[in-house]
Amino acid sequence: MTLYQELAANFERLIQNGSLRVGDRMPSIRTVSKEYGVSKNTVIQAYLVLESRSCIVPRPQAGFFVCGKANQRLPVPDASMPQNHPPDPADDGLIGKVFRNFVNKEITQLSLSVPDESFFPVARLNKCLHKAAQTLSFGGTGYDDIQGNVRLRKNIAKWSFTWSGNLATRDLVTTSGAMHAISLAFMALTKPGTRIGVESPVYFGILQLAKNMGLQVVELPTHPVFGVSPDDIKAAIGKIDICLLVSNFNNPLGSCMPEENKREVVRLLARNGIPLIEDDLYGDVYFGANRPRPCKAFDEEGMVLWCGSVSKTLAPGYRVGWMAPGKYMKDILKLKLFHSVSGTALTQEAIGLFLENDRYERHLRSLRKNLHENSLHFIRTIADHFPEQTKVSRPQGGFVLWVELAKNVDTGKLFDPVLSRGISFAPGRMFTLQNQFHHCLRLNYGLPWTERLEKRLIELGQLLKN
Amino acid sequence: MTLYQELAANFERLIQNGSLRVGDRMPSIRTVSKEYGVSKNTVIQAYLVLESRSCIVPRPQAGFFVCGKANQRLPVPDASMPQNHPPDPADDGLIGKVFRNFVNKEITQLSLSVPDESFFPVARLNKCLHKAAQTLSFGGTGYDDIQGNVRLRKNIAKWSFTWSGNLATRDLVTTSGAMHAISLAFMALTKPGTRIGVESPVYFGILQLAKNMGLQVVELPTHPVFGVSPDDIKAAIGKIDICLLVSNFNNPLGSCMPEENKREVVRLLARNGIPLIEDDLYGDVYFGANRPRPCKAFDEEGMVLWCGSVSKTLAPGYRVGWMAPGKYMKDILKLKLFHSVSGTALTQEAIGLFLENDRYERHLRSLRKNLHENSLHFIRTIADHFPEQTKVSRPQGGFVLWVELAKNVDTGKLFDPVLSRGISFAPGRMFTLQNQFHHCLRLNYGLPWTERLEKRLIELGQLLKN
Repeated sequence: MTLYQELAANFERLIQNGSLRVGDRMPSIRTVSKEYGVSKNTVIQAYLVLESRSCIVPRPQAGFFVCGKANQRLPVPDASMPQNHPPDPADDGLIGKVFRNFVNKEITQLSLSVPDESFFPVARLNKCLHKAAQTLSFGGTGYDDIQGNVRLRKNIAKWSFTWSGNLATRDLVTTSGAMHAISLAFMALTKPGTRIGVESPVYFGILQLAKNMGLQVVELPTHPVFGVSPDDIKAAIGKIDICLLVSNFNNPLGSCMPEENKREVVRLLARNGIPLIEDDLYGDVYFGANRPRPCKAFDEEGMVLWCGSVSKTLAPGYRVGWMAPGKYMKDILKLKLFHSVSGTALTQEAIGLFLENDRYERHLRSLRKNLHENSLHFIRTIADHFPEQTKVSRPQGGFVLWVELAKNVDTGKLFDPVLSRGISFAPGRMFTLQNQFHHCLRLNYGLPWTERLEKRLIELGQLLKN
Repeated sequence: MTLYQELAANFERLIQNGSLRVGDRMPSIRTVSKEYGVSKNTVIQAYLVLESRSCIVPRPQAGFFVCGKANQRLPVPDASMPQNHPPDPADDGLIGKVFRNFVNKEITQLSLSVPDESFFPVARLNKCLHKAAQTLSFGGTGYDDIQGNVRLRKNIAKWSFTWSGNLATRDLVTTSGAMHAISLAFMALTKPGTRIGVESPVYFGILQLAKNMGLQVVELPTHPVFGVSPDDIKAAIGKIDICLLVSNFNNPLGSCMPEENKREVVRLLARNGIPLIEDDLYGDVYFGANRPRPCKAFDEEGMVLWCGSVSKTLAPGYRVGWMAPGKYMKDILKLKLFHSVSGTALTQEAIGLFLENDRYERHLRSLRKNLHENSLHFIRTIADHFPEQTKVSRPQGGFVLWVELAKNVDTGKLFDPVLSRGISFAPGRMFTLQNQFHHCLRLNYGLPWTERLEKRLIELGQLLKN
């Protein structure tokens, strides 16, 4: 246990044995820091852990308060134990089903992994787009630089200071979203049969792409809070050729690898000549005090291909993403040129303009606040209305929850009846190529929290009970 | 020889033996049609052939006139005879070199294959872009339909009437330009080792993509006027698994397959179970009376994957392309989803809006006129100033010329010295994986014709002479 975990456990005991009661104000961060002789940062982290466990809640300008859920909180799911049998003749139909209802506005879309469009700064983006048509020569009609729009790359490089990165404009290449970056990375690093280590569960798009390209997917044990551990990476050495990690707020688990684990994993992989593709598209949507650093921050050998996008924070429809591919830059550029010539300069320039001043940070602050509040609403409602034996993740960022039901439930079979009631969720089986997670599901809490949404969630709980 | 070719040959003899003299007005289309008992269309085609050979020139509202170049016209290059040895350890460095100087505005860019941005309707496109941000919900920030923007698909389908196509909105999927469409088609139809038949020479991007994906490229004999013949396709049956043709104004040859050849090739390939990827991105830039029909027009089995874009006519930087993949739609959609989730709705909607009224046709008319005039300027200047023994293509559309020099010239070696004089061209060796075309080069005439440009072209001729 690290210092902040010990501190959190200590306070949790105080709450459980009644020394701290529901409604009590928690001691201030400064006070705890002095009394326990630890840094303020450690106290903040401990409080965040407590908050994620619904033991305490922050109130703006007033500090943290012990909240009513401490005793009836739901357990967090266990770490996964994927068996890595040959891929199950998977029910890909499931993914198709979920996607077919993707744009249906009648349905309460708990199945997606993107915040609702109402969270996006549409008016400001429109302004940036108009300005982009002016700042680009010939209104952006010409082919762009193959490496991608310079203004965007410059600002992503600048923005990397938020995680103590020191990227330069020339280290980055733009892509049409993060999946396009991953696709280029796969093309550069793999051939059919290449063995790739991934989290389990993990975003189904990654699994389907890997499967489609003939890669051999090795699913790694993954903890819902801490992600993949260095020990599990160590055990996978010799069994994988490349590795892909969603290190910050893995979709669907919400797990975030602790900094020391990231450092160790990067070291282990590099020492064994294994490139690491890091899908860091949720990193800016953190609920804690600081942006978690990506593995890229610890990349000394240029073997981490760091991928990001604004699809989860600003505008998925703009298709603006990027990659810092380290020593693989030359190969990536070649592939980008061969497969798509260049990117869309206009939307890249627009996002570059958006990032240029402090608009992005202001927008993110409000997005994070909204999403964090939503996550707490969701967890509370699930605790009150979902079947007994339900377990639920405690994401410290992102916008999805991972829900584990009783072992005998098959969420794949429940999808159609629930959809017929106007609610869609993502069955757990989508997030693995193995025969597991049938009793799990993923929920998107990136929707405006309304009375209606609460009712739908309660209705979902009741449907799951029957 | 078809009827119009016979007719053209007949008139050519009349010009050569002096019966028709420089400056004479050619008989009207109606007159010839009556006198020879052929359709007006046949006469128009014959005149176009004569025009492409610089025997006659049109004057607006006045008809066709015999022109001064008839006797000193340069020969057209011979049909290619690729040997299909194992790929030559190619000088890929050549392509890199050409691309490195791509955005340098100091250089006279005769190496590109895209019209100059000054030909694009920038102000009107800007208006469409602004409108797109209004017509799309939430300013186009949300993920688009996986198959692509509906307005764009609807208008491409409508536009297919120009080649007697009857595509429906649901037959089309949008892509980020035509190369992205080809990339998806390759992914759907091939695996390493798949044998693909292509024209020789052909756009280097296609060759590099195929090579990169481990395909076995079979280069087919290609005529600079008529493209690949049915006989050569017949001879390739059993040696190729798929086929890719730039049927209308092949880049770099400018060849255009006659309609009857297209019909026969489609039939031959379909009968042998060979899918045809048709790269038809130049088809709208024709100099004749009508848009040449693509092979897709003769596709009864759904085995032609028709690819197009607005990159050569409106805005390469928008990255808007499409594909009508016939019976491979399901596979293509899956791949598009896996590799890039969806496209950029904003630029697709903007182009959809642009196509909605007759703006596009008006723009194309002026673009075609400009490009045709440029091609005649270029051919005349080349005839006057390039070395003896020079041969040059007579494109009936598009914006590139294929120039063949004396056998002992190596254009790859000439690239650097010519570039140092501020002129770039595309060495012929880029357009093949075989050891051929060292004495050829491709020139882009899609630049505003100015005195300065004429001087640069004359300078290029002189450099080639030394």
